Amino acid sequence: MPLPTIEWIGDAGGHARIIEQTLLPRELKYLDLATIEEVWDAIKRLAIRGAPAIGVAAAFGIVLGLKTSRAADASRFDADVLRAADYLASSRPTAVNLFWALERMKRRAAAVRELPLSQAREALLDEARTILAEDRRICRALGEVGAPLVPEGGSVLTHCNAGGLATADYGTALAVLFRARELGRNFRVFVDETRPLLQGARLTAWELLQAGIPATLICDSAAGMVMRDRGVRAVFVGADRIACNGDTANKIGTYSVSVLAKAHGIPFYVVAPASTFDLSLADGSSIPIEERDPSEVTAGFGARTAPEGIDVFNPAFDVTPRAHIAAIVTEKGLIERPDAARIASVLGK
Amino acid sequence: MPLPTIEWIGDAGGHARIIEQTLLPRELKYLDLATIEEVWDAIKRLAIRGAPAIGVAAAFGIVLGLKTSRAADASRFDADVLRAADYLASSRPTAVNLFWALERMKRRAAAVRELPLSQAREALLDEARTILAEDRRICRALGEVGAPLVPEGGSVLTHCNAGGLATADYGTALAVLFRARELGRNFRVFVDETRPLLQGARLTAWELLQAGIPATLICDSAAGMVMRDRGVRAVFVGADRIACNGDTANKIGTYSVSVLAKAHGIPFYVVAPASTFDLSLADGSSIPIEERDPSEVTAGFGARTAPEGIDVFNPAFDVTPRAHIAAIVTEKGLIERPDAARIASVLGK
Repeated sequence: MPLPTIEWIGDAGGHARIIEQTLLPRELKYLDLATIEEVWDAIKRLAIRGAPAIGVAAAFGIVLGLKTSRAADASRFDADVLRAADYLASSRPTAVNLFWALERMKRRAAAVRELPLSQAREALLDEARTILAEDRRICRALGEVGAPLVPEGGSVLTHCNAGGLATADYGTALAVLFRARELGRNFRVFVDETRPLLQGARLTAWELLQAGIPATLICDSAAGMVMRDRGVRAVFVGADRIACNGDTANKIGTYSVSVLAKAHGIPFYVVAPASTFDLSLADGSSIPIEERDPSEVTAGFGARTAPEGIDVFNPAFDVTPRAHIAAIVTEKGLIERPDAARIASVLGK
Repeated sequence: MPLPTIEWIGDAGGHARIIEQTLLPRELKYLDLATIEEVWDAIKRLAIRGAPAIGVAAAFGIVLGLKTSRAADASRFDADVLRAADYLASSRPTAVNLFWALERMKRRAAAVRELPLSQAREALLDEARTILAEDRRICRALGEVGAPLVPEGGSVLTHCNAGGLATADYGTALAVLFRARELGRNFRVFVDETRPLLQGARLTAWELLQAGIPATLICDSAAGMVMRDRGVRAVFVGADRIACNGDTANKIGTYSVSVLAKAHGIPFYVVAPASTFDLSLADGSSIPIEERDPSEVTAGFGARTAPEGIDVFNPAFDVTPRAHIAAIVTEKGLIERPDAARIASVLGK
C-alpha cells in the first residue's frame, strides 16, 4: 500500500495534507495546506503533481476556498465558488483532470447552494473525498486492465512519474506495473530520469525501489539505445490530457519516446482514467502546453549550468499522436488503436 | 577566433595548458598539466574532452611522460614510450582519436629512438605541435566542406559539444555552423543540453553565445517536439569513432536524435576529421562503449536527485547506424550516404 499522496485531515474546517514532492527522494515530508492559496502554490511549484492528484488537490482547494466565505445567500455562494474555481484553474494549464475536478465541484456546489453555508461546505468536502476515493478505485482498475500487457521476463520503459505520487493510490502507468508484480510477473523497468525536474529519478525510481521491482535509471537521451540494445518490450506512460481522437499530452519527452518506440516496434501504452479525456477537443493540436521557467533547465539542483543570457525553450508537456499509441488503458477497459469511435465506445460504458 | 582549448607552453621541458572545462560556463580557468598523470586525469574527468582535443592532449601527454625518462639507450626509450602510451590509452576507451594520436607519437618515437634523449623529446614535442596545428587546419576545412549544408533561414539542432572546446580550433559540427555564420547565413541552433554532464548547456550554448549565433537551449527529451513543431531542417553532431561502414559512436543520445531526425525527414550530418575513422572495425557493433560513474546521473551538479540503491545505466556513448546518416563531413570532402566504398574513396584522397 503506497503512502497517501494527499488526504484530508478533520472535518470541513480541517485541511489537506500532501507529500512535499519537491524534497523527494532526500526527505519524506508532509505539508499541511490550510488555505486555497497554499493549494494553488503547491500545484504551481509541483509539490503535488500528476494529473489525477492535481484533480484531488483542486477539489480540496475548493473546500478550503470556502472556509473564508461569508456568503449569506445562494448567489453570493455561487460567486465564491466560481472565484475559487477560477483561481485554482489558473495554477497549471495542461492537465485536464484539474478542470474536470473543478467542474464536478461546481456542479455539486450548484446542487447545495440553498443549504446553510456550513452544510454546503460539508457536502463539498464529501464530494472531494468521493473524488479521492474514486481515484483509489480507478488506480486499482487501471492496474487490472493493464497488467496483462506487461511482458513476462522482459523489460519495460517509463517516462516521468505516473505512480502513487501522481494519484491518490498506486498510480496509472505504475499501477499496471505494481499489479503485474503482485500477479507474480518478472520484469525490469527502465526509468527515464525526466528532465528538467527529474520526476523519474526522484519519484518513479523511489516508488519502484520501495515496491521491490527491479529498476534501472537512465538519462532520457539513452532511451533509444536502451530500446535497441536492452530488450525493451513495452512502454507505459501516464497522460495529462487526451483529446477525442486519442492524441495525448504528457510530460515533455513523451513524444520522443513514442517515436523511438515506433521505430523499434515496441508497443507504446498510455494509462489514464476517463477523467483525463477532454472530449471537447477534436485532436491534440488545441491542447494548451504549459511553458515553465527557464531556470528549471539552466540552474537545476543547486548550480548554474548554462551561460547567462542563453535563450531557453522549456515546455512542460508535448503531444503524442494517436498513431503512436498501441492502446490506452482506462478503468473502463482497454482502447486499442485509439480513435474517436473506439474511445467513445469504451468511455460510454 | 576561439580561445585555445589546449596549447603547449615552453620547450620540451615545458607543460600543456588547457581550459578546465568542468568549470564552464561559470568560470574560465586555465589548468597547467606538467605530468603525464595530470594529463590522464584531465582526460578521465573531462576537464578536456572532445575526440580531436583528446588526441592533442594525449600527444602532449607522451612528451610529459618522457620528461622523467632516464633511458640511456634506444630499447629503454622504446619501453618508456610504450609505457606512457599504454597509460594514456587507459584514460577513455571510445574516442579513437586518442589511440590515433598515440600511434602517431609511437611511430615518431620509433624514428628518433637512436637520438640523444633530449633531441628525441624535442622531436616528439614537434610532432605533438604538428598534430595540434593540423587539427586547426582540419577544423577550418570541416567548416568549408559543411557550411553549404546549413539551411538559410531555418533551424538546426546539435547534441553535446563538437565545438572549439572539443578541438584545437573552432570545432567539428560547430565549425560548420561558425563558417556558415561567417558566410552570412542566418539560422537558429537548438542545443540539446546533453545529460548527464550537460556539455550542450555548459559548452555549446556558451560558444554559440560568444559567436553571436542565435541559440535556444532545450532538454534532450524535447528534441522530438522541437523537430516536429519548430522547423528543424538539419542536425549536426560530432563523432568519437566511425567504423569502416560509417556506423558512428558519439555522445549518448546521438542515436535517439538520429532516430528522431529520420522520423521527421530531417537530414542528420556527422562532422569529423579523418582521424576519427577506425578502419579496423567493419561496423559499429565492436566499438567499445565507456560506462561512467552512476553519480553523474544520480547526483549531478550539487544535489542528490535519485534514491540511494537505485541501479543506473550510464553509457557515455551510443552508436548511430550509417543508414541514419545523410552525410559525413570530413576535411577531405563530403561522404554522402556513407558506406565502406564511399568512405574509402574519400579518405583515400
